[in-house]
Amino acid sequence: MSLITALEAHDIRFPTSRELDGSDAMNPDPDYSAAYVMLRTDAPGGLSGHGFVFTIGRGNDVQTAAFGALRHLVVGRSVEDVLSDLGAFARSLTADSQLRWLGPEKGVIHMAIGAVINAAWDMAARVAGKPLWQLIAGMSPEQIVDLIDFRYLSDALSPAEALQILRAAYPGRQQRTERLLASGYPAYTTSPGWLGYSDEKLARLSREAIADGFHTIKIKVGQRLEDDVRRCRIAREAIGAEHGLAIDANQRWDVGAAIAWLRELQSFDIAWIEEPTSPDDVLGHAAIRRGIAPMPVSTGEHTHNRVMFKQLFQAQAVDLIQIDAARVGGVNENLAILLMAAKFGVRVFPHAGGVGLCELVQHLAMADYVAISGSMEDRAIEYVDHLHEHFVDPVRIRHGRYLAPMKAGFSAQMVQASLTRFAYPNGAVWRESAP
Amino acid sequence: MSLITALEAHDIRFPTSRELDGSDAMNPDPDYSAAYVMLRTDAPGGLSGHGFVFTIGRGNDVQTAAFGALRHLVVGRSVEDVLSDLGAFARSLTADSQLRWLGPEKGVIHMAIGAVINAAWDMAARVAGKPLWQLIAGMSPEQIVDLIDFRYLSDALSPAEALQILRAAYPGRQQRTERLLASGYPAYTTSPGWLGYSDEKLARLSREAIADGFHTIKIKVGQRLEDDVRRCRIAREAIGAEHGLAIDANQRWDVGAAIAWLRELQSFDIAWIEEPTSPDDVLGHAAIRRGIAPMPVSTGEHTHNRVMFKQLFQAQAVDLIQIDAARVGGVNENLAILLMAAKFGVRVFPHAGGVGLCELVQHLAMADYVAISGSMEDRAIEYVDHLHEHFVDPVRIRHGRYLAPMKAGFSAQMVQASLTRFAYPNGAVWRESAP
Repeated sequence: MSLITALEAHDIRFPTSRELDGSDAMNPDPDYSAAYVMLRTDAPGGLSGHGFVFTIGRGNDVQTAAFGALRHLVVGRSVEDVLSDLGAFARSLTADSQLRWLGPEKGVIHMAIGAVINAAWDMAARVAGKPLWQLIAGMSPEQIVDLIDFRYLSDALSPAEALQILRAAYPGRQQRTERLLASGYPAYTTSPGWLGYSDEKLARLSREAIADGFHTIKIKVGQRLEDDVRRCRIAREAIGAEHGLAIDANQRWDVGAAIAWLRELQSFDIAWIEEPTSPDDVLGHAAIRRGIAPMPVSTGEHTHNRVMFKQLFQAQAVDLIQIDAARVGGVNENLAILLMAAKFGVRVFPHAGGVGLCELVQHLAMADYVAISGSMEDRAIEYVDHLHEHFVDPVRIRHGRYLAPMKAGFSAQMVQASLTRFAYPNGAVWRESAP
Repeated sequence: MSLITALEAHDIRFPTSRELDGSDAMNPDPDYSAAYVMLRTDAPGGLSGHGFVFTIGRGNDVQTAAFGALRHLVVGRSVEDVLSDLGAFARSLTADSQLRWLGPEKGVIHMAIGAVINAAWDMAARVAGKPLWQLIAGMSPEQIVDLIDFRYLSDALSPAEALQILRAAYPGRQQRTERLLASGYPAYTTSPGWLGYSDEKLARLSREAIADGFHTIKIKVGQRLEDDVRRCRIAREAIGAEHGLAIDANQRWDVGAAIAWLRELQSFDIAWIEEPTSPDDVLGHAAIRRGIAPMPVSTGEHTHNRVMFKQLFQAQAVDLIQIDAARVGGVNENLAILLMAAKFGVRVFPHAGGVGLCELVQHLAMADYVAISGSMEDRAIEYVDHLHEHFVDPVRIRHGRYLAPMKAGFSAQMVQASLTRFAYPNGAVWRESAP
């Protein structure tokens, strides 16, 4: 029997604010960061599991400290027990009654739990010798249902309904796996559209995105209406009428302001407006959606758990959703969200970018395609082209599509040199820039 | 000019789990705890401000660590600047774009922000020489409106509407203040009803509560239906038909289960069912309310910000709400919630108990009575009779009513001996019990 011997926490930060990469209406100067967790074991071959929470700088220390509160639930447990029932493992973390008070199931403590659950999944995929998406896609419908905490979901999705969705997708799994291996999964790119970029850079990067094979780009909006009108025109002209132009307000508006503002952008044939208002405002999203129809409405990267997603579906508040691999309670909760999306017929455009989010979320989208929704050509995974070099198994993009990852694991592991160099505050990159 | 010179954080825990005080369906063994924050200044007389987040044990270290992330926003600021515009001060904390990613406005980071805002209010009330409730009740309607962040609220409450509510209450302020000073504010008690208590203790404490002058008691439910039926019968018989019996499920059920379970308790004339399901499930509360009418539905102690309260009102999901002084973004956000409750005609029964929550929330209820809703006889503040001895200005209960606090401040300060003795893990009470 092998044991989990340590839960290591690392505060890793990249000084991205120096270049204004990632600037938007609510986040003018992010330093993309990871509260990184490593589960060590005494299993043969130095088996370990890796996970992280993405943050944008300050507070990454708080997020990293939260891992400490989970040690007593993880260290000393049998590797075999944990990996043989990842549903029970996930529930044992979210159900700690004292820690639950800090959420429940939201914010710092829930994101820390999600990263530890993801690290256990990384370990499970390594042991299985498969990339995570194939590990999930190889499970029986019953095994997948057992992974999910249906608490608070049963009025929208029962275990029996989940089983029905998974069984319906079962026969086509092999064919879809082959298709994925052959041609990858569609991507869209946000790289052209950061608010800090000049008009010239926006136009150039938009043209390059289409030339690179992307069919949809996304630009940031919400600072000044006249700028948004001009930038939408520039982007639309650069990509042509046949490609998708999505916009992202990063929670900038109140409900009424969102409706008024977005009506001024109707003529640019917007693919979706993302995060028009507070991520907590389910009814607000529903009101905005009614107010700007037929422009599609979306949210999700800050939607903190399955109960909030459930309500977005029930209230018909969104046309599509972003899932995020590092915001909710790990793979398990994202499977619940994907199953609800399938039931309610809502398309999924996973949130990525930041640091490592592309690496993680591609696995969830591909597992969804093979085993749940059975569909990928009407959806796409966000792609942003920075910080991939810090990962052992970085994403591979070809002609605007994510190639299926092939290495065993969840692609979450950072290279050791980056863990050292970007450690905060004592890594070389931070020492060099200290005043 | 005086400066805020330090933000001190203390991890304080009381070993309440040894007695099963505070046990309920979701929290079997809480150790009532405070992540305690002290703002120190160089102002004459050693002026300081005190605040805290209530937690139930594990994780209090994470909550305490979160204060560290706020130091750069607080230490070095002018006391006069902060106290002269507490609205701007509150917004400067919630608007830090990097910290916002950890919420936004929810969980560990938001509760830490709330405690620091409350500590500034404590300081403001000390400087004014008034208890907090009188400081607020002495402000003009315009000053109160300036305290509030209306972001994400304008579809439910505009500044003009808030002003209208405050102006309508203005003429009666003096009379209501006198009434409050003369006879206090109604309380209800949860002390009889913890799940860990025997039937005999439940009956005895219920009778004693009525003898002590309380008109409503609350008992915990949700573990086993047959126990709940028996305990409701015992409590109802003990208090008689003319008094209120509220029940609290602490988020135990899914929507369908809540409806089925609660229909079995209809015959006990329940004053309200509190937290029947996930605090995030606005639409779930609305469905439960429709399913069990006319039994009143309530929630709020875990409702993490004003956007969630807004939706509870918009969806007609609740008959009444609990506000909590230490869950949301401090006094400012609670004023927004109280103003929305007044607009939507929803009664407020503030959440208290824990450690220090009674001390804090009484001020908010009393400020609401004098300056906002103008009403108190159709509502009551929760009361639980433990841990008050650790506070410099503990609540005073007479004949089932909270007497108005008279000392300058927010009643948040703990006595120094308790800060020392219950410090975790090195205080005497924890060293003595260490294995």
